[in-house]
Amino acid sequence: MSSDCFCPDRSPAFPAPLAVSLGDPAGVGPELALKAWEVCVRRGTPDTVPFFVMGSADWLESVSRHTGAGPVRRISSAAEAREVFSHALPVLEPSVPLAASVRFGVPDPASAAHTLAAIEDAVGLVAGDEASALVTLPVNKAVLQAAGFPHPGHTDFLGVLARRLWPCDGVPVMMLAAPGLRVVPVTVHVSLREAIASLTTDRIVQTARTVSAALKRDFGLEHPRLAISALNPHAGEGGLMGTEEDTVIRPAVEHLQAAGIQADGPFPCDTLFHEEARATYDAALCMTHDQALIPIKTLDFHRAVNVTLGLPFVRTSPDHGTAYALAGAGTARADSLVSALDLACSMVRARRAFAAGAS
Amino acid sequence: MSSDCFCPDRSPAFPAPLAVSLGDPAGVGPELALKAWEVCVRRGTPDTVPFFVMGSADWLESVSRHTGAGPVRRISSAAEAREVFSHALPVLEPSVPLAASVRFGVPDPASAAHTLAAIEDAVGLVAGDEASALVTLPVNKAVLQAAGFPHPGHTDFLGVLARRLWPCDGVPVMMLAAPGLRVVPVTVHVSLREAIASLTTDRIVQTARTVSAALKRDFGLEHPRLAISALNPHAGEGGLMGTEEDTVIRPAVEHLQAAGIQADGPFPCDTLFHEEARATYDAALCMTHDQALIPIKTLDFHRAVNVTLGLPFVRTSPDHGTAYALAGAGTARADSLVSALDLACSMVRARRAFAAGAS
Repeated sequence: MSSDCFCPDRSPAFPAPLAVSLGDPAGVGPELALKAWEVCVRRGTPDTVPFFVMGSADWLESVSRHTGAGPVRRISSAAEAREVFSHALPVLEPSVPLAASVRFGVPDPASAAHTLAAIEDAVGLVAGDEASALVTLPVNKAVLQAAGFPHPGHTDFLGVLARRLWPCDGVPVMMLAAPGLRVVPVTVHVSLREAIASLTTDRIVQTARTVSAALKRDFGLEHPRLAISALNPHAGEGGLMGTEEDTVIRPAVEHLQAAGIQADGPFPCDTLFHEEARATYDAALCMTHDQALIPIKTLDFHRAVNVTLGLPFVRTSPDHGTAYALAGAGTARADSLVSALDLACSMVRARRAFAAGAS
Repeated sequence: MSSDCFCPDRSPAFPAPLAVSLGDPAGVGPELALKAWEVCVRRGTPDTVPFFVMGSADWLESVSRHTGAGPVRRISSAAEAREVFSHALPVLEPSVPLAASVRFGVPDPASAAHTLAAIEDAVGLVAGDEASALVTLPVNKAVLQAAGFPHPGHTDFLGVLARRLWPCDGVPVMMLAAPGLRVVPVTVHVSLREAIASLTTDRIVQTARTVSAALKRDFGLEHPRLAISALNPHAGEGGLMGTEEDTVIRPAVEHLQAAGIQADGPFPCDTLFHEEARATYDAALCMTHDQALIPIKTLDFHRAVNVTLGLPFVRTSPDHGTAYALAGAGTARADSLVSALDLACSMVRARRAFAAGAS
């Protein structure tokens, strides 16, 4: 493992297409893939890198008929996506077929094996240089776990696949990115009590190192600036409202600065996200889930993208869930998926430029 | 105490002017008062209710000379403010003079007695119907506490004064208001650990009752809608990430609904503040300081206003601190103070209309 917490970069060069894993078929994912394909084809800019969906072509055809978005075309290898993309959404079948029982908006553990195979097969294609990056559509953790899935979520599963397919031992870090704001929660999907208990100087330092390295490699920033948030109101106000700023967070900031990373803080979190404040950093590391996600979802609900840093490949995802209630209605917005596809392309390009500069 | 947690309404009718307490003389408050007076006089709309500053006229004159904003005119009663206001900022001397030692940007406990007298005298004028409402300029808690001030902050001190001057026992509630968003933190100036420990069903219910009543009386909303936030990420996701949603917050929502208050939740806090979400409620009650203050300061940093609900009089305040670093430079922005003055006027008018409707 390199000193910047990253696994070796194995992202293949364009023009390998992007792989999009289907996610939960009963959610809005399949419909969004069709709509995003329409947006990308209509837009037709040179920036549009073809993508294909790894998932059931039968189901996507049925969604296409139902919503009027599409059409869909089966492909038998990732390479075919390039040719097909201008006429139809290319779809590659995963190694496990979809259970026949799937219905819009109905969580169904019988679909879990297909959902997981789509992710695993897509990662395999990225590892084999047949795809440039992975964009994942939303899954429902409860559905997967009901079927025996042992991981806390998508990101952790990708970490396991990465360690299996690549010589790497990095820990994935979740970033949310929107135009003008990137945020990283240091603690994520745990209760607030557990978030406080699990916050350590080492954890903040490791997360910040991964973020700083990713901003260089994946976002093309030569000297990335990190803002480190406080945990308590008013950054503890000198110990009156909590001590973690002094005992946990400030030592992390000092450690990072000593290591040559441009980090500053701890800053009171409420005044860290207005326009003037946002201009002072390239990413904000927040101590809790809500501290990080409130500002980005408040400012740019539809375009925020979930990015996994610290993996040996580029992975992005729309920043929303399965939205079962909207599935099949044809009204779900594909903005976040389009942003996730665009960001994945931009990150792959940045990695190539970074690798070229480093070699 | 009335059943809606409010003390009896004693706000006098307009045209009694608004009383503005000077706050910390070494901070930006005095300069902002001069600038806000200029804005109000220049704007000259019929909505402009005169205000006067309760504080040292000598110091305000010196700030006026220093910054070019003003001029200032001493008055000897609140009633004179009306006449003076179109020509100069009216200033009424508090019962305790300002110590001669005050300097821009230098915290000085010797000024604390003057600062506190200005607040207390201003509240006295409101109680005596000589002023319509109180707008407070920022104080520095540490400076006041160094001089023996025993209260956690401004709002608590006002609660004590209210209980002394009025027959009331309400507990003040802090709201932050900006165009299009009102937020109330249920726990405020305590560490995050203590916030979690001190969160109870009863506390949420009491806060929500005060907010609901204030939205009717002070904001003219006939059927106010409250959104109650979760404490944990994803509202605990069915207990996977915390249990307070089930054990503490949902019972509060049910209690409020049974009492005929339009409250809903607990909602995951990260998706509670984008445009579509904001349209579904009149105020969001959040469980922690940052959950409430991050969205409003992110969306409208310069115009957010601090409002105290549950007092027998209207009190607003700009939503920023003393900003010592800017004091005397002439660059501080008066937007939040102007918004605080406007909101105080609008709240006094709403109270009058409400009282007229109720009688």
